[in-house]
Amino acid sequence: LLVNGKEMHSLWREGMQIKMIDQRKLPQKIEIFVARNEHDVAYAIKEMVVRGAPAIGVAAAYGVAMARDSKKAAELLQATRPTAHDLFHAIATILGAIEHGEDAVKAADEYAAAIVEKCRKIGEHGKKLIKHGYRILTHCNAGALATLDYGTALAPIRMAKDKDIFVWVDESRPRLQGLLTAWELEQEGIEHAVIADNAAGYFMEKGMVDMVIVGADRIALNYDVANKIGTYEKAVVAKENEIPFYVAAPLTTFDKSIEDGSKIEIEERDAKEVYGIYPRKFKARNPAFDVTPAKYITGIITEEGIIELDK
Amino acid sequence: LLVNGKEMHSLWREGMQIKMIDQRKLPQKIEIFVARNEHDVAYAIKEMVVRGAPAIGVAAAYGVAMARDSKKAAELLQATRPTAHDLFHAIATILGAIEHGEDAVKAADEYAAAIVEKCRKIGEHGKKLIKHGYRILTHCNAGALATLDYGTALAPIRMAKDKDIFVWVDESRPRLQGLLTAWELEQEGIEHAVIADNAAGYFMEKGMVDMVIVGADRIALNYDVANKIGTYEKAVVAKENEIPFYVAAPLTTFDKSIEDGSKIEIEERDAKEVYGIYPRKFKARNPAFDVTPAKYITGIITEEGIIELDK
Repeated sequence: LLVNGKEMHSLWREGMQIKMIDQRKLPQKIEIFVARNEHDVAYAIKEMVVRGAPAIGVAAAYGVAMARDSKKAAELLQATRPTAHDLFHAIATILGAIEHGEDAVKAADEYAAAIVEKCRKIGEHGKKLIKHGYRILTHCNAGALATLDYGTALAPIRMAKDKDIFVWVDESRPRLQGLLTAWELEQEGIEHAVIADNAAGYFMEKGMVDMVIVGADRIALNYDVANKIGTYEKAVVAKENEIPFYVAAPLTTFDKSIEDGSKIEIEERDAKEVYGIYPRKFKARNPAFDVTPAKYITGIITEEGIIELDK
Repeated sequence: LLVNGKEMHSLWREGMQIKMIDQRKLPQKIEIFVARNEHDVAYAIKEMVVRGAPAIGVAAAYGVAMARDSKKAAELLQATRPTAHDLFHAIATILGAIEHGEDAVKAADEYAAAIVEKCRKIGEHGKKLIKHGYRILTHCNAGALATLDYGTALAPIRMAKDKDIFVWVDESRPRLQGLLTAWELEQEGIEHAVIADNAAGYFMEKGMVDMVIVGADRIALNYDVANKIGTYEKAVVAKENEIPFYVAAPLTTFDKSIEDGSKIEIEERDAKEVYGIYPRKFKARNPAFDVTPAKYITGIITEEGIIELDK
């Protein structure tokens, strides 16, 4: 993650403190949030100081590792957000390490380093899909902020930045995580434009989008993908316009215990995230994720290669 | 249009003044904008004091009728906004009346009265499509505010309010005209919830939307429909989920000089409408409308009946 020309991670350990770029404050300012225990980490996940499935996983890993009572910490952290699979995977990994008598903090460090390496590999595999001059649409922020470094959807884009590419950034209401993506692209010097989510279909239909790449919060056994609300609409419209639609995610996002997407729990967040920008309150509903059936997905870019779904 | 229990129009003539509810101020406050000449009317259309294709048409009709030089006024008003067909139709109607030696103000009054009556009839035809307990999705504001009274998309909904209906209101970024719809529904006591535009597909896919009704800005000869940005996405996703998708519009919105939707000029508005809610400026694009090909439309509800497109 490039921040004013300096390479850094969006979350890292310093002694027994977990430091993270406070994503609620971006892009206005770069502020560091310090978590000193599992309660701070739980707060950070719940309030979206840290967000993005892989980054949430790393934060939770450290939360368990730092706790005196790792079982209690695991329970606390599992209750923060229900949709991202990495959270549960990371907690299970650290609990497993503890059970095997390993050093929990070292296990969390390894988990963090592995996520960065997985994202780097996702970038390597994914960049081959991007041709010179491609105009790529992305939704939400599946960037370095969401994954410590590189990103999932943004990793291939970062690595293809010498290919004269352009990125359409869905603003991603209600929480406008698209601005985090735009901020990362600014930092990297990659051409882009933010659009109202409603305009994605317009540009697709006009032939101005060559491919779509998004991240994922949870992937079912049949490759149905839960991701930020709106992903489903974009996937349906992409398919209708024969635009390749790729999901980028490490294997930690795959949940083999869930047969298909209909069984993924979808978090419904406070309606205030919707009406908060209005001049006054209105009755509102706020599902934070949706499920994109595998049939709309061209392929899933993982650290081990691309799973082709559209044959 | 019900405003605090009192019936009124969103735009009306008093002597030689045109009064209109200032839609930029809603829903915070009900403020009346007074136009004293064609320049005031042009400002009101451009700045969206008045909006919605039929209401823009009525405003322009009065603008021409009030002017000393009706030809110059017509030119001025035609240059305000390019997409809504009613604008051009209304101006041509008044110019025609003047040419035939008719009283221009009377012609504009008749044009206004006719729009209200057309919307009433759209409501009568459209309400037959709405079954008891229906959950209806709408996009933007095609309500009484956009049409003086009743609305186009909202006319059938108003007239079916005793059928225990529920309305999903797309917030309709970037300008959030969904709030005008929510405000109208509040005034009428019709159950509703505002949602981020991204969530429309989620609720459609969950089987929680029984039909979609939207308005239109211009309808081509082949029934392709230009309407608020995002309409196209909703139509594609509705079709994918076998949800009836209706457009409601008076015949003044039909442009027989345009063969198909690809020839409709799409207004691109100031990018500030997109980034204005962000903590700081980002590069942005802002097309205000899109075109929904006729193949995604179940039918068009007009004052003369329903044009069935999906046989």
